[in-house]
Amino acid sequence: MRQQPRISTKETGVQPSKQPSDYSATELGQMLARGEINAVDLTEHFISRIQAHGDSAVFITTTFERAREEAAASAARYQRGCPLGALDGVPIAWKDAVDIKGTPTTAGSAIYRDAPAAAEDAPVVARLAAAGMVTLGKTNLSEFAYSALGLNPHYGTPLNPHARDVRRAPGGSSSGSGVAVGARLAPVAIGTDTGGSVRVPAAFNGVVGYKTSETRYDRRGVFPLSQTLDTVGVLAHTVSDCFLVDQALRGGRADVPATASGQSLQALTLVVPENVVLDDLEPEVHANFSASLDRLSAAGVKVLRRHVPELDELKALSASHGFLASAEAYCWHHDLLESSRSSEVDPFVYKRIMAGKSMSAYDLLRLQQGRAKLGASLRASMGEAMLVMPTVAHVAPPLAALEDDMDHFVAVNSKTIRNTMWGNMLNICALALPNGLGAAGMPTSIVFAASAEREDFLLDCGLSLANVIQL
Amino acid sequence: MRQQPRISTKETGVQPSKQPSDYSATELGQMLARGEINAVDLTEHFISRIQAHGDSAVFITTTFERAREEAAASAARYQRGCPLGALDGVPIAWKDAVDIKGTPTTAGSAIYRDAPAAAEDAPVVARLAAAGMVTLGKTNLSEFAYSALGLNPHYGTPLNPHARDVRRAPGGSSSGSGVAVGARLAPVAIGTDTGGSVRVPAAFNGVVGYKTSETRYDRRGVFPLSQTLDTVGVLAHTVSDCFLVDQALRGGRADVPATASGQSLQALTLVVPENVVLDDLEPEVHANFSASLDRLSAAGVKVLRRHVPELDELKALSASHGFLASAEAYCWHHDLLESSRSSEVDPFVYKRIMAGKSMSAYDLLRLQQGRAKLGASLRASMGEAMLVMPTVAHVAPPLAALEDDMDHFVAVNSKTIRNTMWGNMLNICALALPNGLGAAGMPTSIVFAASAEREDFLLDCGLSLANVIQL
Repeated sequence: MRQQPRISTKETGVQPSKQPSDYSATELGQMLARGEINAVDLTEHFISRIQAHGDSAVFITTTFERAREEAAASAARYQRGCPLGALDGVPIAWKDAVDIKGTPTTAGSAIYRDAPAAAEDAPVVARLAAAGMVTLGKTNLSEFAYSALGLNPHYGTPLNPHARDVRRAPGGSSSGSGVAVGARLAPVAIGTDTGGSVRVPAAFNGVVGYKTSETRYDRRGVFPLSQTLDTVGVLAHTVSDCFLVDQALRGGRADVPATASGQSLQALTLVVPENVVLDDLEPEVHANFSASLDRLSAAGVKVLRRHVPELDELKALSASHGFLASAEAYCWHHDLLESSRSSEVDPFVYKRIMAGKSMSAYDLLRLQQGRAKLGASLRASMGEAMLVMPTVAHVAPPLAALEDDMDHFVAVNSKTIRNTMWGNMLNICALALPNGLGAAGMPTSIVFAASAEREDFLLDCGLSLANVIQL
Repeated sequence: MRQQPRISTKETGVQPSKQPSDYSATELGQMLARGEINAVDLTEHFISRIQAHGDSAVFITTTFERAREEAAASAARYQRGCPLGALDGVPIAWKDAVDIKGTPTTAGSAIYRDAPAAAEDAPVVARLAAAGMVTLGKTNLSEFAYSALGLNPHYGTPLNPHARDVRRAPGGSSSGSGVAVGARLAPVAIGTDTGGSVRVPAAFNGVVGYKTSETRYDRRGVFPLSQTLDTVGVLAHTVSDCFLVDQALRGGRADVPATASGQSLQALTLVVPENVVLDDLEPEVHANFSASLDRLSAAGVKVLRRHVPELDELKALSASHGFLASAEAYCWHHDLLESSRSSEVDPFVYKRIMAGKSMSAYDLLRLQQGRAKLGASLRASMGEAMLVMPTVAHVAPPLAALEDDMDHFVAVNSKTIRNTMWGNMLNICALALPNGLGAAGMPTSIVFAASAEREDFLLDCGLSLANVIQL
């Protein structure tokens, strides 16, 4: 077995007691640039952690051979003095809904366990590879990315690494990506978010979740749940990490952002919706959210409480006409679901997708037109402000009851995505930040949402907000 | 009664035997600019023609008071030497699906006969008013713009002015706009085109029809049939007229185009689809189309014959999954159609819209995704080329049989839009040009189609093509 990498402490405040996995992607990039660690050792460190981790359900496929080649190439670039940017040599894990050349994209389904290997990297993968990032493997997810708790009967359910009492849900659908970052098996992981699938696992695992709006990145090569609502997002330890990965995914060179953001907190307005999203919060979620708002106010941020009618209207729209994602998922999986192999699909997922079969064109049009109208209305009323709320009303729930009882599962799942799903329907971008510990010592989270295509603003604000929020 | 306006012949080739209504909008603008006619007299000339026209079904509402005010204002501008551009003082008629301040928008329906008057001009109306155009009134259409033959049981069916034997269809849905230009009751009229509703009445009435792609103009204030497929278009006597109106609708100043276009015919490639669109042509339609192609070839245009697979695939898509427009029309008219007043809707229209009620979300998604995929495929295969075909496979059919027999109506209607409807599904822009006379001395038409958002190219080519084609 390889030695643990040595971290030089010259010229830095690095603590010898810390391991490389204890650092953020941004910090790792800086350490690589300063020669305090090398890319090959760093990759071996994370490979060792993955291999040593007790839970084999976190990754569906590992790509250690590719990782070692990429790490060696990165190390050579550093040696020549020409790294590809601030993420060169930093490892990353990908939700197994994204095509990675040479591996099957299972989408968490038994049906695709032996699917043909992808012929090409998805464009998002190619971009981060071009930024020098090192692909460790593909993480587990709810089958077809369709549920927010992260259960998977085919590949096992990754366990929430923060749970000390009972087995608890990892959050989904990007369950393995949430756990990989939360358990420090990778400094960064990519997820997809169709109703909360980046934000929820970020919240449950105590990491930062960055959900983009619809057109931020190229979505080709990403296994669809809802071709309308799907978005690619980032799970990481810091907003700066999300900022860097975003730069690279946009095709730019990743450069470390200025510590002091250009965005003044005094100029920022946050709106707390008084309706829907504050209902039935766990007491600690409520307390941590209030404490975060107090800190933000104390830092000069203007915090308003306001009724946001679009949240009620969206709730009524879904109550009358159903869910866009189920119709689009049914359409995508039509041939499978109408075949004899449909019995191989997780019954919890099957039931939700089949709700899309009976939807009428009329309902679908009302949903499509309704979201466009409400999205425009919210955009107009938000202006430069951001919305802020608890990411999830509760901490990661125990797994046992969810596995046994479909009604309980459905009820918990619905509540889990209550504060996130509106964001996909109204096409916002959002940053979920850990903001303390709640029941059973599990992480809680606060989320900031900006209008579609305002990611630059969101990330810029987020750099400052994280300094205020993070405990 | 006012005298017919006198046209000065000084400095021009104007023939004293011709009336103002015999000139194109471009020519009228030039005559106004040269002071050979004045805007007030010109407007009165068209008002007299409308009043003298035997068929009261062409206009649903006239706006002569507005027209006289606008004409007087225009005349004053010319007198001050500062007209608003090449269309200042030129009269225009609007399909009664477009909001004009102070008039109800009936959409050709008895239901909206006494609808509240529009509070504002639609943006397209405001733009042409800002260019100095004179609004004569609002023209008849198929109820809710939903059929291509132009029958209307509520306001009467405008008669095709070219028919000398029997009453013949005006073409629809922009029936009154087609007839208004064809019968020279207005030099220009605006229509909307969801499946052929500009191109078909242009073809049947022997005028030029210009269909835009989806995003060319602001569609607010236009009564929707299909919010996806609806496009606003122009019916006029020349491509130059369409060019001028397009400039004004885009918010620019209308300036007369150079007679010799910048687009070289030698550099142009036209593709004649060998499948679908040449089937079952009336002999004269076929002969005139062939003659037009011969003239184009002789003028140096490269004319290719090619199988266009997207046309077959689109046909199969609709056969399997139905029609997007019916689902969107059902959604828009849902409350009406589910009320007791549904019996007041034209049964031919009711039947077609109600087909959208039973459509599933799955079918709608297949249509939406299919059109996006086929549209992209066609765009890629067309490149710089344009498609060319007969606009309609037949000339304007006799009305009697259509009025009596719904099956016959449905069959003729389907064939009428066969060569146009694919263009809305695949989002092209197109110019239909008269290219001779067919059966019973009725006009035939040829249509040129370019990819979405290539209107500048289409119009530029069209100026040259019209010189070659027009007989």
